[in-house]
Amino acid sequence: MTDQHAASRPRQEVTLAHIAKLAGVSAPTVSKVINGHPGVASSTRRRIEDLVREHGWRRRPDTGESSAVVEVVFESLDSLWALELIRGMDEVTQADGLVLGLIDMRGRRTPHEGWTDQALARRPLGIIAVSADIAERQRDRLASRSIPLVALDPRGEPEHGVPSVGATNWNGGLSATRHLLELGHRRIAMVNGPDTLMCCRARLDGYRAALDAAGVPPDPSLVRTAPLYVEGGRTEAAALLASPDRPTAVFAANDLQALGVYQAAHRAGLRVPEDLSVVGFDDLPLAQWADPPMTTVRQPLRKMGAAAARMVLALAAGAAPGEDRVELATRLEVRASTAPPTHLPMR
Amino acid sequence: MTDQHAASRPRQEVTLAHIAKLAGVSAPTVSKVINGHPGVASSTRRRIEDLVREHGWRRRPDTGESSAVVEVVFESLDSLWALELIRGMDEVTQADGLVLGLIDMRGRRTPHEGWTDQALARRPLGIIAVSADIAERQRDRLASRSIPLVALDPRGEPEHGVPSVGATNWNGGLSATRHLLELGHRRIAMVNGPDTLMCCRARLDGYRAALDAAGVPPDPSLVRTAPLYVEGGRTEAAALLASPDRPTAVFAANDLQALGVYQAAHRAGLRVPEDLSVVGFDDLPLAQWADPPMTTVRQPLRKMGAAAARMVLALAAGAAPGEDRVELATRLEVRASTAPPTHLPMR
Repeated sequence: MTDQHAASRPRQEVTLAHIAKLAGVSAPTVSKVINGHPGVASSTRRRIEDLVREHGWRRRPDTGESSAVVEVVFESLDSLWALELIRGMDEVTQADGLVLGLIDMRGRRTPHEGWTDQALARRPLGIIAVSADIAERQRDRLASRSIPLVALDPRGEPEHGVPSVGATNWNGGLSATRHLLELGHRRIAMVNGPDTLMCCRARLDGYRAALDAAGVPPDPSLVRTAPLYVEGGRTEAAALLASPDRPTAVFAANDLQALGVYQAAHRAGLRVPEDLSVVGFDDLPLAQWADPPMTTVRQPLRKMGAAAARMVLALAAGAAPGEDRVELATRLEVRASTAPPTHLPMR
Repeated sequence: MTDQHAASRPRQEVTLAHIAKLAGVSAPTVSKVINGHPGVASSTRRRIEDLVREHGWRRRPDTGESSAVVEVVFESLDSLWALELIRGMDEVTQADGLVLGLIDMRGRRTPHEGWTDQALARRPLGIIAVSADIAERQRDRLASRSIPLVALDPRGEPEHGVPSVGATNWNGGLSATRHLLELGHRRIAMVNGPDTLMCCRARLDGYRAALDAAGVPPDPSLVRTAPLYVEGGRTEAAALLASPDRPTAVFAANDLQALGVYQAAHRAGLRVPEDLSVVGFDDLPLAQWADPPMTTVRQPLRKMGAAAARMVLALAAGAAPGEDRVELATRLEVRASTAPPTHLPMR
């Protein structure tokens, strides 16, 4: 049997025996590799995995060999942002009698090498990577066992072949900035997150597009970058507010940063929103608890979590991947942290 | 074979065949019940489960039949409190190559009936119930399959036979109130959570004990009860602050309520801590972000999560349950929300 023949067969008909023959090993050896068991030389294992991938072998959906778990790999499980995504995913998995399994990488972008072995041995129904990069080799190994992978809010450009779920970050940046422009602000600063994050680049581009559309020339000194936490927002806003030509409004790339902007304003003796308007991004529960309640761009985090879970379950059930990238709509929530600038005439 | 004989056998020697004989059914029927499969009349199933429990049948630890998942049942996955516990549990399970499986009951205190069937079918290594009540019948069914159960911060009195992990809530209430007394406060209010929660009753008793030890007569009008969220703290603090003989300090049963107390103070034109001292409980990240940073009683949430995970894994590995209740120490974190009362002479 040649590769050409194999490629022309319907996927379901590629059997372990075919793979074994092609690899020059026994079927039990192929089974060992597929089921994540030890005792196969790494060169052999790699050869088998390559063949499995190449020939599109898929575990039959009805073998019941997968566990009832959808695993979620978090780059960092450290904010309510993560918890909202979890709640959305849990709604979907729980309705199916499944369990959501969590892995917190505590700031690592890519899971360690041993993770793939463990994941293959655990045989989850599927994996959702949240702001995490799954390396190409890791993706290949998951694919070789038909464990589908979905990216939620991927850090960089969505990987070829990995379906992903995100929010309309560009539109969110646009609507936040347009709201401030409509209130009469012209000196609008942005505290952005790291520009290695695709979501942050999109928010910044939305901010710039709104300024451009309003004919407000961009001032690079008004754009600053900081980690997406309270401290980052506080530090950068303090620097912005110390300038003689300080901004009258700050758009922050997330709610935590925006809370830091509140604190910097307070320490500088400025009131929000009378002296400084602040817009956040995410609409975490703390945005409503903030004092004053925060105007922010709402990300539909639960819906995003639910969409990722539905996507991975559909793939696990054998559905063909549909759209590669789903973006759910953001929406500006106007609360009490934005107002017209006081030193400009009201419009 | 009689019950007496069975009871005297070492546990490991009780086989499915023995159980089947006693129940007057076939061994496959017993296997079906133990493995959570359908097709057994409920009266038969109940008889078999009773026998399994009574005769102490345990799945052999080396059969590898359990999944690599520790399931966590949350009454409500809605705050950073839950996330900190998750991170602690994840540290333990991840080190063992296991996955933490989450179930969010969204406010239900007891899982629905179908949950037990699903959990039995999924065969987790163990279950941790967080602020959730597992009904006696549900506990019995889990025990019949040797799925260990540990309670984390149980709502009510710890159940007989269910090991539990919590914090020294009474000591926390005592140290928060003693701190305020030492600053010179005498009119110290407490906004407490629902008194159906054991942790809240313990915090209230600690508050009362501190007042009593200082010779300050308790004033029942200064103790109010509200849900453990920002809104609850705000509403009750607003009522307390509207009184002509208002308190000079408020101890809240958690950080979210304390944040609500900040807001009520702000709306009443009072400054924290100059006009009102505020103490929270938990030490969530938001306590440091609050403005001013919050004095609060730190619960070692990650350590509590880790302790519960270690406990359930030890039980799953066949260890005998040790202490029934582990309480980890709380510690007062003094930050900037507490100061001597201004209308009393400084001490």
